[in-house]
Amino acid sequence: MPSDARVDKVEALSGSEAKWIEFHKISWTDQAGTSRIWEAAARKTRGKSGVDAVAIGTIIRHPSRPLSTIIILQYRPPADAICVEFPAGLIDAGETPSEASLRELHEETGYRGKLVHISPTIVSDPGMSSTNMQLATVEVNLDEGDKEPEQALEDGEFIQRVVVPLDELYAKLETYAKEGKKVDARLWHWAAGMQFAKTML
Amino acid sequence: MPSDARVDKVEALSGSEAKWIEFHKISWTDQAGTSRIWEAAARKTRGKSGVDAVAIGTIIRHPSRPLSTIIILQYRPPADAICVEFPAGLIDAGETPSEASLRELHEETGYRGKLVHISPTIVSDPGMSSTNMQLATVEVNLDEGDKEPEQALEDGEFIQRVVVPLDELYAKLETYAKEGKKVDARLWHWAAGMQFAKTML
Repeated sequence: MPSDARVDKVEALSGSEAKWIEFHKISWTDQAGTSRIWEAAARKTRGKSGVDAVAIGTIIRHPSRPLSTIIILQYRPPADAICVEFPAGLIDAGETPSEASLRELHEETGYRGKLVHISPTIVSDPGMSSTNMQLATVEVNLDEGDKEPEQALEDGEFIQRVVVPLDELYAKLETYAKEGKKVDARLWHWAAGMQFAKTML
Repeated sequence: MPSDARVDKVEALSGSEAKWIEFHKISWTDQAGTSRIWEAAARKTRGKSGVDAVAIGTIIRHPSRPLSTIIILQYRPPADAICVEFPAGLIDAGETPSEASLRELHEETGYRGKLVHISPTIVSDPGMSSTNMQLATVEVNLDEGDKEPEQALEDGEFIQRVVVPLDELYAKLETYAKEGKKVDARLWHWAAGMQFAKTML
């Protein structure tokens, strides 16, 4: 995959200039009645769904291959690194989180699946931002001879998809981390929860 | 628990005024050689560890009770809601992530434990911020008559701890979400991964 993306310069971003995110000074009152200030970031793109983004935990069933999921690798400027994540994306205006999850899975991986579950709205990093999301579970049922589908990436998107047997996911993420890639915290927690259940319960 | 914390006012926060977070305009070059701009938030508090924060997945072993973990409930102004999270906190200057995980667990829950694993550095929301963290696994071994320890909260911290049998965690989080509490995405993913392994593998 292409790996030569790079950060050229980091400057202070003013609130008036920002198009995608905004910065909040929150005046709040704590449980003891004390007035306090909290600083937070927010996305400016949230639509009427009230949810910023979806991530997709895909379950691929195939007649002769182990139960698998799909993860994606892409360069992320805020981390200045190749990040390893579930397929994910922002919810478009007028779109439901469920619709966004099937669309994003198709665009980023080429696969079309059936939504079998969607989580409640969960908060991505609530000490620092108002960003929220839902985690969709999507099943993809393949037949023996099915070819790998084509991604439907937008111009300027460079996304590598990797199909990983669920039994190998945790070890795969450990390997990526050792290589200097940055694993998304949510994907890591999902794999670690699965690993924990397999080894400790 | 106290539940009457509230947001009074949200104003635009200027970069020059912000003490805890900062805002970056990242000029970067993509894999096709095209110059692009990305907007991101960052914490100003990162020290020499290179890691912003730790979260703690606690495993409580008790002679006559089921294997359990600890989650915490606290009001978070960015979400304007009671959030449900793993114990977690920022890493102090000069502290290692491992040290921070034992300290934060003690402060927020009263429990002292043994660090048995710490994850690589993982990224919390890499499309929007540079924030990163490590997930620590800490074991707490209790004897039959041990009393619940006292929390060591700072002034102005209102944190409720809840010990939850691991077998009940996912259902508990679903209940909290139905009540209007906001579950942290990382905790949700950990519980969902565990639930997935138990029901689908």
